[in-house]
Amino acid sequence: MKKIQFIVIGKTQDSYVQDGIAVFMQRLAPFCQATWHVSKPANYVTTTKKLALEQEAKQIRSFINPRDFTFICDEKGKSLTSIALAKTIEAKAIDGYSSLNFVIGGAFGIAPLLKQEGFLLSFSNMTFNHQLFRLLLIEQVYRSFTILQGSGYHHE
Amino acid sequence: MKKIQFIVIGKTQDSYVQDGIAVFMQRLAPFCQATWHVSKPANYVTTTKKLALEQEAKQIRSFINPRDFTFICDEKGKSLTSIALAKTIEAKAIDGYSSLNFVIGGAFGIAPLLKQEGFLLSFSNMTFNHQLFRLLLIEQVYRSFTILQGSGYHHE
Repeated sequence: MKKIQFIVIGKTQDSYVQDGIAVFMQRLAPFCQATWHVSKPANYVTTTKKLALEQEAKQIRSFINPRDFTFICDEKGKSLTSIALAKTIEAKAIDGYSSLNFVIGGAFGIAPLLKQEGFLLSFSNMTFNHQLFRLLLIEQVYRSFTILQGSGYHHE
Repeated sequence: MKKIQFIVIGKTQDSYVQDGIAVFMQRLAPFCQATWHVSKPANYVTTTKKLALEQEAKQIRSFINPRDFTFICDEKGKSLTSIALAKTIEAKAIDGYSSLNFVIGGAFGIAPLLKQEGFLLSFSNMTFNHQLFRLLLIEQVYRSFTILQGSGYHHE
């Protein structure tokens, strides 16, 4: 069964986001082995932004295996339709990657070096609340699986 | 105080979405007089899709005044950044519209005629769950007000 890892910086604080994530983690269960990893945010008060981002990148990398394929959510990334994302997920599964990872950075973004290590995926030209964005991502990954399965969840 | 109307088709069923909307309705309160209107979905079993969409459009229009400015959320619409949306909201407020409305259609979309009566606003190339999309919209409208106020909520 396909492994999916969600890697985020910092706990989910808003209870409505927690509840929504729980709903989609449950819905994902028949499709994949999904894990939700929470990485500790760096302390932006005692260090520079650059170093803090690198610290966070290091923690994010600790969840990533060289045989994984990693999507990094970034506003400046590539914008895909839901169907194109589903097809990309399918293609990467066929390519034999051991896990597909989805990374969401912290409030200050993602270290430039880490960005070069994954597929930059943009959801929108708009900026969303970092907490709420977690829901968007997990719903979209769930939608991808329903598209690949041909269930009625997604319709154009 | 600026009037904002959210007009959606069908009740919010998912409790995490309801909770999230409640959070943002409260956060919006200092900025505007926001109202959340729920319009009844048409019966797609007993009528054609075209007629059903027109029935829903009629109900949506019942909340709209000729002196309002109406944004209609549509995947094929114009994609704005959060800052561009904030500036558009500000411009429309200056233009003296009595209310700014944000319409989300039902599961089958929006009647073509109604689409011609508003500003088609796209959030993403991706399709989102219609329930979850309500949260996206209200967060984005809240974000717009924080951008116009210059609070720290939004950072690039």
